[in-house]
Amino acid sequence: MRAPKSATASQLVEAAADVLVRVREHGPRVHCITNTVAQPFTANMLLALGAVPSMTIAPAEIASFVTRADALLVNLGTLDPERREACEIAISEAGAAATPWVLDPVFVDRSEPRAAFAKALLAKDPPAIRLNAAEFATLAGDDAQGDALARFAREAGMVIALTGASDIVDDGMRRAVIANGDALMGKVTAMGCAASAFVAACLAVERDPWRACAAGLVMLGVAGEVAASRARGPGSFAVEIIDAVHHLDRATLVERARVT
Amino acid sequence: MRAPKSATASQLVEAAADVLVRVREHGPRVHCITNTVAQPFTANMLLALGAVPSMTIAPAEIASFVTRADALLVNLGTLDPERREACEIAISEAGAAATPWVLDPVFVDRSEPRAAFAKALLAKDPPAIRLNAAEFATLAGDDAQGDALARFAREAGMVIALTGASDIVDDGMRRAVIANGDALMGKVTAMGCAASAFVAACLAVERDPWRACAAGLVMLGVAGEVAASRARGPGSFAVEIIDAVHHLDRATLVERARVT
Amino acid sequence: MRAPKSATASQLVEAAADVLVRVREHGPRVHCITNTVAQPFTANMLLALGAVPSMTIAPAEIASFVTRADALLVNLGTLDPERREACEIAISEAGAAATPWVLDPVFVDRSEPRAAFAKALLAKDPPAIRLNAAEFATLAGDDAQGDALARFAREAGMVIALTGASDIVDDGMRRAVIANGDALMGKVTAMGCAASAFVAACLAVERDPWRACAAGLVMLGVAGEVAASRARGPGSFAVEIIDAVHHLDRATLVERARVT
Repeated sequence: MRAPKSATASQLVEAAADVLVRVREHGPRVHCITNTVAQPFTANMLLALGAVPSMTIAPAEIASFVTRADALLVNLGTLDPERREACEIAISEAGAAATPWVLDPVFVDRSEPRAAFAKALLAKDPPAIRLNAAEFATLAGDDAQGDALARFAREAGMVIALTGASDIVDDGMRRAVIANGDALMGKVTAMGCAASAFVAACLAVERDPWRACAAGLVMLGVAGEVAASRARGPGSFAVEIIDAVHHLDRATLVERARVT
Repeated sequence: MRAPKSATASQLVEAAADVLVRVREHGPRVHCITNTVAQPFTANMLLALGAVPSMTIAPAEIASFVTRADALLVNLGTLDPERREACEIAISEAGAAATPWVLDPVFVDRSEPRAAFAKALLAKDPPAIRLNAAEFATLAGDDAQGDALARFAREAGMVIALTGASDIVDDGMRRAVIANGDALMGKVTAMGCAASAFVAACLAVERDPWRACAAGLVMLGVAGEVAASRARGPGSFAVEIIDAVHHLDRATLVERARVT
Repeated sequence: MRAPKSATASQLVEAAADVLVRVREHGPRVHCITNTVAQPFTANMLLALGAVPSMTIAPAEIASFVTRADALLVNLGTLDPERREACEIAISEAGAAATPWVLDPVFVDRSEPRAAFAKALLAKDPPAIRLNAAEFATLAGDDAQGDALARFAREAGMVIALTGASDIVDDGMRRAVIANGDALMGKVTAMGCAASAFVAACLAVERDPWRACAAGLVMLGVAGEVAASRARGPGSFAVEIIDAVHHLDRATLVERARVT
């Protein structure tokens, strides 16, 4: 038997289920600047969710795509010069059109130039950032513990979606902890990138970025649990999670969400 | 019970089965300029069909690859400057060697610069173009209805392979309608790109580009139906369709083809 | 019943099992310069093995990644100018840090400029090179038969890991022949690239590059056989082999290895 949810947590889970339904209905276009390793899996995960991905980074045409998109993902993996330029153009275009975007500062803990670039992008006020603990520590100069997340979110004026064994979504005033997911998620490349893509899809249909972030991570975590119950390893898990996202519905989400 | 096929449709299905057998026998080399999202799936689909894919776009070496290839795919996804340059070199090389090629103008409806580039490539006389209705409307300035396809094919002097709920292959004088396929094909990234890659593989072994286009789309559509009967969602579908292509044979193709 | 192994072959298989255990324990970081077609599969195969892949080629940051890596893979697929520059920087960095690396000269038989570049990299003394017979013939100017492999290895001062129906690992003085694997491995894109990535992961935890190469190829071959027993075609095979690598353990490796 599951622990009873607090009133706020229950409301958030219901809100996440509403967001899922809206993504299915509206089929938001999500333009993804993402690394070449993550592109196929991210595209298939977004399609399974009901969103419509596009992925060009060509300077001549990225503005055309972002203008027509409902949300933008800026993932810093494989950050070559063309991707940097694409980020600048896309974020400027998103700002002009009030299109929501999410920053995914992949592996900033491994590369000083990438960390510096990520910090410059933080100054452009993304509504949300999705990262792991090592990446947070690099950007915040602080461990992802205690009040550090809330402080960083408050000062930066954005929602932090920190993924790990449990996920934490904090906007400086509100915090949700999501206990869904499975260890196999860490054994499939681009799973974190897909988490950020889900956040982007949810931002397209939900104005409160804290709710959008929580919704995206709950969807992925629940789908991950369903997939884990059928998978025999990370190869079949990567297949099963796409199927699970495709079949994810309000009832499954509400039943399985473990949010506090 | 299936509807009896007309004499011409039956002949086309037999021709498609012949093309399949020739692809298996000859293992044509297909050089693919294609977007980074589509590369792994396209390569695996071509390998399952019995073709041998290569995918470099480096200006210094693409001519070496195209010279040794039996067909060329020019897919405009993720159209960065290097890809544009690769297209120019590859098409010139293919022209010099009389190597057949197919144009896939992915997402030209989303990007004016890409549409302009696609129109410039159309002037280089590809034997065939594979696209969807939105892409056709952008290039033709006309809806993909009534006689518009035939008119465009006639004026451009090429075969149009239009994919959708049903596929239409039209060279201005002959038209085939292919009713195979499954809705899950629209939920897997790069499925259209794979369709174009199949057309390229068929062009390598069949001189009549109308037959080659029809053959490629029938193969993919039949494999899609076999896969759908085994899949539980788009994740497993993407796996099953590769297996189905691998096992596709003359008997299955002829039995399941729904061509008019 | 399997043929009894010779004393040396048994020792090598035990050494390979030790290497597997060490990869699982240490989780070496493997930086991969590899082609965009191979990136997702290579990353997932390395994760399944217990290694931690990274894949950027951006000139500004590749040194940061290589400095923090335990081994380097240099794969020449889709060899655009940026990849060439990345190779130079990465190999220089690996040399300075005494980080082991492996060269994978994909498709040098198809492109003269790529072959020339591969020869220039050979002069930078990689501990190991992983290739197929056509690629060897291009680089060595000699068929991969008789004593040609040993001679080349001796003169170049490196280990040759030649994959094919059987794999041969030769350092000029010692030779191992590995009879594991399955024909479906040739029907999945990036399988050779994954073989090289496994060699890189093994080089990170085993000082003798001949043993490291043999260990990597035995692991892949055994996993391939396990996968083939469950797969229905190349699509499901690509999934099953990731699961098989994930579950590969000392007992399975020793039981199934066919090394002479």
